[in-house]
Amino acid sequence: MNTSTFNGLPTTIVIFGASGDLTQRKLMPSLFNLFRKRRTPKDVQIVGFGGTEFSDEQFRERLHTGIKEHAGYDFTEEEWNVFAPNLSYFHGKYGEVGDFTRLAEHLSQLENGGANRLFYMALPPTLFPVIIDNLGASGQLHENGAWRRVVLEKPFGTDLESATILNHQVHKALNENQIYRIDHYLGKETVQNILFTRFANTIFEPIWNRTYIDHVQITVAETVGLEHRAGFYDSVGVLRDMFQNHLLQLLTLVAMEPPASFSATHLRNEKVKVLSAIQPMTPEQVARHTVRAQYKGYRNEKQVNPASTTPTYAAMRLFVNNWRWKGVPFYLRSGKNLAEKLSQVIIQFKEPPLAMFPMQAMKPNMLVLYLQPDEGLHVRFEAKAPDTVAETRSVDMEFHYAEAFGQTAIPESYERLLLDTIQGDASLFTRADEVETAWALIDPILQTWETHQTPPLAVYRPGSWGPPEGYDLLARDGRRWLNEEASMMLDK
Amino acid sequence: MNTSTFNGLPTTIVIFGASGDLTQRKLMPSLFNLFRKRRTPKDVQIVGFGGTEFSDEQFRERLHTGIKEHAGYDFTEEEWNVFAPNLSYFHGKYGEVGDFTRLAEHLSQLENGGANRLFYMALPPTLFPVIIDNLGASGQLHENGAWRRVVLEKPFGTDLESATILNHQVHKALNENQIYRIDHYLGKETVQNILFTRFANTIFEPIWNRTYIDHVQITVAETVGLEHRAGFYDSVGVLRDMFQNHLLQLLTLVAMEPPASFSATHLRNEKVKVLSAIQPMTPEQVARHTVRAQYKGYRNEKQVNPASTTPTYAAMRLFVNNWRWKGVPFYLRSGKNLAEKLSQVIIQFKEPPLAMFPMQAMKPNMLVLYLQPDEGLHVRFEAKAPDTVAETRSVDMEFHYAEAFGQTAIPESYERLLLDTIQGDASLFTRADEVETAWALIDPILQTWETHQTPPLAVYRPGSWGPPEGYDLLARDGRRWLNEEASMMLDK
Repeated sequence: MNTSTFNGLPTTIVIFGASGDLTQRKLMPSLFNLFRKRRTPKDVQIVGFGGTEFSDEQFRERLHTGIKEHAGYDFTEEEWNVFAPNLSYFHGKYGEVGDFTRLAEHLSQLENGGANRLFYMALPPTLFPVIIDNLGASGQLHENGAWRRVVLEKPFGTDLESATILNHQVHKALNENQIYRIDHYLGKETVQNILFTRFANTIFEPIWNRTYIDHVQITVAETVGLEHRAGFYDSVGVLRDMFQNHLLQLLTLVAMEPPASFSATHLRNEKVKVLSAIQPMTPEQVARHTVRAQYKGYRNEKQVNPASTTPTYAAMRLFVNNWRWKGVPFYLRSGKNLAEKLSQVIIQFKEPPLAMFPMQAMKPNMLVLYLQPDEGLHVRFEAKAPDTVAETRSVDMEFHYAEAFGQTAIPESYERLLLDTIQGDASLFTRADEVETAWALIDPILQTWETHQTPPLAVYRPGSWGPPEGYDLLARDGRRWLNEEASMMLDK
Repeated sequence: MNTSTFNGLPTTIVIFGASGDLTQRKLMPSLFNLFRKRRTPKDVQIVGFGGTEFSDEQFRERLHTGIKEHAGYDFTEEEWNVFAPNLSYFHGKYGEVGDFTRLAEHLSQLENGGANRLFYMALPPTLFPVIIDNLGASGQLHENGAWRRVVLEKPFGTDLESATILNHQVHKALNENQIYRIDHYLGKETVQNILFTRFANTIFEPIWNRTYIDHVQITVAETVGLEHRAGFYDSVGVLRDMFQNHLLQLLTLVAMEPPASFSATHLRNEKVKVLSAIQPMTPEQVARHTVRAQYKGYRNEKQVNPASTTPTYAAMRLFVNNWRWKGVPFYLRSGKNLAEKLSQVIIQFKEPPLAMFPMQAMKPNMLVLYLQPDEGLHVRFEAKAPDTVAETRSVDMEFHYAEAFGQTAIPESYERLLLDTIQGDASLFTRADEVETAWALIDPILQTWETHQTPPLAVYRPGSWGPPEGYDLLARDGRRWLNEEASMMLDK
């Protein structure tokens, strides 16, 4: 946390891309909720910056609709009427330094004295450098008693080189501790709860290692196809869209050592340490231990290149080469148009060392961290089948987040993350070295796929669980995807 | 298992005390169910022996009523009609050797060739020696191709000396492997499930030791008072009635090392090993670490001595002095007329070694093994409270035996235990050295209580959770009984 965070000054939030979808659907409803819960600083001004012309009134009207729809269960007009006067709009062009000088003047008037400023880039990353340059040129990034922070929306780069260049560009005008690279995935309660499960309890950590765990499965599956992102998606594919960020983030949370504390520095050090313990794959390893696939019909989608080889599904096997995890495979997979919307981490334990009961088939224990859609925890273990001498049967013990806390209590990811940026807590944001280390793992896979076209691009039926090659990846190791066994709780 | 168990011979079951309550309510319904499930040997004869005169027909009629009422959900007259011809009655006196000679002749005629014989003593232990002597004198205990087994109902002795004498007496005519000391408690599915939970799973055993466990609480609480057992109960009290058998049995199952196998020898070796690792208490320790109490009004009960000091409640702290448990207190309590009918084992874990989250109060994890009334498993752990930065809240994950398997699937304890005696599996029966080792722990407590009247006899209100002294026992160690925290699952 920066020393200047609680300086008693008002706060101004400037959103670049204020007329966009993200602002209307996520950022503004989240800010409204924070305001409503009295978590924003007392004197907060929210200024939308965009290329479309709006009057303040038009801008507010637009947001009113968005907030009403997306703010959740508790929207009231009364609270909106208190919130709305804090909103205003500034029309400008991202490439015009003059517009940024005008912005600076406008903000100074608005702030009426010193104020902290949060600049939120709700825009494609290609625009980050020019905006940051112009913010710098207009003197708005210099911290002088008041703090200046910049929130950068993902994706952060498209490969290691572009991410490194982007880091270099933003570091010209900003210190790393002013930068908040956002991945809304980390704002999810249940993603954070992975760390709480592991480190606020005594019972899980002792068995969280290679001695007891056979392997780990991480699945982030979508049932939707391309939706409105076809053009963008076709240029990136599943690896850049999901693995470099979400899946590797989940892996770090599952695999990391207990941090010295939950400060941003300590936490992110541990995450980088996990990523550093994974060896980037050789082309031979990519050919053998990754799967890429495209759903049938993908090339007929609008805005998709009819000869596209962009994968919409990927699976891979990774090893974290450290004392805790040596030899424990992490199987990751993600895809579009799959059978189920599902984010989960399955910890498959080893069998007990000794089969003392004359069982037909002794099943290993399983711990499932559900992230979506039914957030919770699920333990599958063996119990004695009644009225038998020594048969066991798998039974389940479940914790449902929404059941314990109520569905309405779980806030939108952006709400927590925006609050963190205002409070200067970067724990849930990606650090420069973290982004680059993640890209360093993804890059060799991308290169082998794109340059050598190995492994061959597989095809899968929309609505399935992916191509046969995805099953083979585990079958070769004598294992299989366990989502069916793990999904019992969802049936209830 | 004895070599002669599966010798293809018919089996005869002789029940001494055939006109008694146990026979009608438990033994016969269990035998009927075993028969119904085709688990009894093909040619089974069941002969009731008793002092009351019954014709076979009268005896069957009597049992018909009992079975109909107690056999469970699946009684049908059709099955009864198949079962009934196997039942007959023999009128005789336990002290008359001549009656046993007549019995031997009667059985030989009935068996029409060689048969295995199971003698079940559904009688007070004072009668065991004379019956066994008479069985021996009439040549009925000699195994000659067919097996001969004796089932002895509890209580087995009233202190170490009487138990040792009784063992000596029965060993004169029987080998230890012919003796089945029954404690119906061990026939309960959930009691057996303690071992399955521990040893058919990978996830529990690694945390099942002094490194992770703070202490263990074992509670067997009854809401009933003396019922029809007042005279008997006043002569024994809670220590003999509940601790020497049930509570110490539960303790051994919770604390034992993994046995080499689940054979009777290996399993019972481990149980004796646990009991041997508990130091018998000195009088000073008894004064400090045990509580004895009587419920208010006990002395006014019919058949109770108006000056009785018989305790109806006891609590104590024990240590198992071995590598696994050194320093981990086991708190045991049991009583009549308490607030709730409840049998449970609470494993209270230590707090996580490091409080990384700025929590108000970090609660340690808890694992509860429910034996009664809602049999199951309950894990209490910490989860992140949603919409907070780093607060945790205790949440629960539960497994209900009846929910997973259906209530009707859980058979009466006696059903399993009778089957085991027929099959020659003594795993769930108490061995001579086990009984004596348990008495060796109870004896010094009894002596200090009865001889020195220390600690003073406390009094508790019927319907409460026992006397204040029971709370003090834990409070002195900075702990408390956790049944309220543990009982969440029962509310559902």
